Amino acid sequence: MSPTIPPLAAKLDGLRSSAIRDLLKLTGRTEIISLAGGLPDAELMPRARLAEAAEAALSGNGCLQYTESPGWGPLREVLVRRESQRLGRAVELDEVFVTHGSQQALSLLAEVLLDPGALVIVEDPAYVGALQVFRAAGARIVGVPLDAEGMRLDVLTELLARGERPALVHTVSNFHNPGGVTMSSRRRREIAELADAHGFWVIEDDPYGELWFDSPAPAPVAAYSRNVIRLSSASKILSPSLRVGWMVAPDRVCRAVEMLKQGADLCGSALTQQIATDLLSDESWLAGHTDTVRTTYGDRAKSLVNAVRTRFGDRVSCSDAAGGMFVWAEFTDGTDTKQLLPRALDAGVAFVPGSAFAVDTDYGHAMRMCFTTSDAATLDEAIARLARAAT
Amino acid sequence: MSPTIPPLAAKLDGLRSSAIRDLLKLTGRTEIISLAGGLPDAELMPRARLAEAAEAALSGNGCLQYTESPGWGPLREVLVRRESQRLGRAVELDEVFVTHGSQQALSLLAEVLLDPGALVIVEDPAYVGALQVFRAAGARIVGVPLDAEGMRLDVLTELLARGERPALVHTVSNFHNPGGVTMSSRRRREIAELADAHGFWVIEDDPYGELWFDSPAPAPVAAYSRNVIRLSSASKILSPSLRVGWMVAPDRVCRAVEMLKQGADLCGSALTQQIATDLLSDESWLAGHTDTVRTTYGDRAKSLVNAVRTRFGDRVSCSDAAGGMFVWAEFTDGTDTKQLLPRALDAGVAFVPGSAFAVDTDYGHAMRMCFTTSDAATLDEAIARLARAAT
Repeated sequence: MSPTIPPLAAKLDGLRSSAIRDLLKLTGRTEIISLAGGLPDAELMPRARLAEAAEAALSGNGCLQYTESPGWGPLREVLVRRESQRLGRAVELDEVFVTHGSQQALSLLAEVLLDPGALVIVEDPAYVGALQVFRAAGARIVGVPLDAEGMRLDVLTELLARGERPALVHTVSNFHNPGGVTMSSRRRREIAELADAHGFWVIEDDPYGELWFDSPAPAPVAAYSRNVIRLSSASKILSPSLRVGWMVAPDRVCRAVEMLKQGADLCGSALTQQIATDLLSDESWLAGHTDTVRTTYGDRAKSLVNAVRTRFGDRVSCSDAAGGMFVWAEFTDGTDTKQLLPRALDAGVAFVPGSAFAVDTDYGHAMRMCFTTSDAATLDEAIARLARAAT
Repeated sequence: MSPTIPPLAAKLDGLRSSAIRDLLKLTGRTEIISLAGGLPDAELMPRARLAEAAEAALSGNGCLQYTESPGWGPLREVLVRRESQRLGRAVELDEVFVTHGSQQALSLLAEVLLDPGALVIVEDPAYVGALQVFRAAGARIVGVPLDAEGMRLDVLTELLARGERPALVHTVSNFHNPGGVTMSSRRRREIAELADAHGFWVIEDDPYGELWFDSPAPAPVAAYSRNVIRLSSASKILSPSLRVGWMVAPDRVCRAVEMLKQGADLCGSALTQQIATDLLSDESWLAGHTDTVRTTYGDRAKSLVNAVRTRFGDRVSCSDAAGGMFVWAEFTDGTDTKQLLPRALDAGVAFVPGSAFAVDTDYGHAMRMCFTTSDAATLDEAIARLARAAT
């Protein structure tokens, strides 16, 4: 008798794989210059300093054991100091929780903050990893468009006036992925006031805040309200292989997240958390290292934007290269970027079409380009190829 | 105006924190000998070999980047070889998926295999980390008692005959936590046949299989049916700080888990996965190392069991010390272990009362004792203290 094959859960039918991850698999061909990725440059990761920290963690009294679910104690203490500076108030230890990258913070928070059918407001275009998590949690998702000052709060205010009651609003406040923009100080204060007045959570997702090119990002949204949960990460400034992210959130949120983290994976890695502690607490080294990353990415970003402006002129409008890892560009002549992509791949360049990030709009003429892993000459060649594909 | 504080998700009300984790926080006092933990001995973790592997991973061409969601390729290849040997068939690469400890495999599988209300059969007493995950998934949980041969399949068969249709059955087949027993070969074949006949999944959760003392564990349940998903881990033989677990499951299960892992935390740590690859592929070193762990734990286990038998005689019946990390003991004279615990703590010894692991039964007279982190003299003193507390 042949065995009866059991089914998978019916609820899986509604989930989709990440379009970007699937695309990345296709753009690994070496002859293609990929602007489609979203990876920090591995060449800039502090290999020697990481090795030194790993050696220290693995010799003598370093911890090789399971660690506490909220994170390795000394790491949380370093983060308390760091986040207190950032937020301009004394952050408590119980408000700091270490996660397996900030993606895990998003997924645990979705469980902690959302009942099925809850309304979640996201930026449009949106960070795909957040969308995926909120969809899996069974949320109703509404997108609010971005402009040059970040999330359009006039649109959010109108939604609230119509009686919409979001459980949470998600924002990538600094150097948006994919939109490139940074929320203005005025709007940061305003969205915090809305959160306080209407009693909703804001998740301020900030993996890129340290990667400013000309001037630091404004004070975080979380500086203006305790209803704001701030996420950050070591992935973009040190190495994603540490899988160290963290959140600053009210104690009761952290305790609920702790309960779910025990079920999700018990705890993080004491090894990588010790390494992160070492590097994040070495403040003068870290300042110099971060500065190098900023300068390198800043030069690349400006090369990319210059190349786009030179080759395309008015045909493409492009976000400023103020920080982060991405430039968002829109064709003004009706060019469809999904149709352009196969021609671009033939010409030897990859990007992500805007539609991959679209929530309630289309962004059919837009694209996201990542500048982190290519030098100026390569970026120029990439845009030359794109221009040939787009003729 | 004072801010309006947003609520947490209503569904959280039904979840509980891990009783064992909460208890562990209370037993950290140095004057207490704790048999309540569930940790491998950090002294036996291969610090120098880990340091060597970390140095190799961080120098030269080691990967510091995000890795693929199913795990670092070379690690999956090592696991293919290892699991092919274990299962007696050629395991395919697409059947192997690396997780953040095997706890993450449980939590992702609960999402992939269970719709709310699905029936899950667990062993009674049960591994608490599994219970927590299945509860969070909204499953209906039924416990099947253990005896000296493992899960009582006569009880399972009766449930099936009554028309119960489990979506999955969870078993810790080797050196059960907390029950200490190992499922017999006959029952392994039999439960696999039931899974094939009735079309349910079996999760064979095997973190302790390598830790046999006198003779190796029987061939895994997964050797008898493709409806069995096998979980294993590097935590107990190398170090939990690697956070490296893995599953062997049909390709379609792995692909569904992959989709959810992207949302959960994107990917594991390329650093710790490279370290695990290095150590797991160094077969002759690993054999020697594992042997040392086995011998040390075996001696401790036997000391503990001897001490219990010497001090308590017929008053306590105790599982054999055949492998793993735990001994399960039951008072035969009606002593209530939950009432005993505070007196035991006063006497300077901690254990976990059986009720912490109970599903449908009570186990009010039972307790779990972990022998991994104490030497023979300490274990003897612990049982002497327990005997004083229990007079």
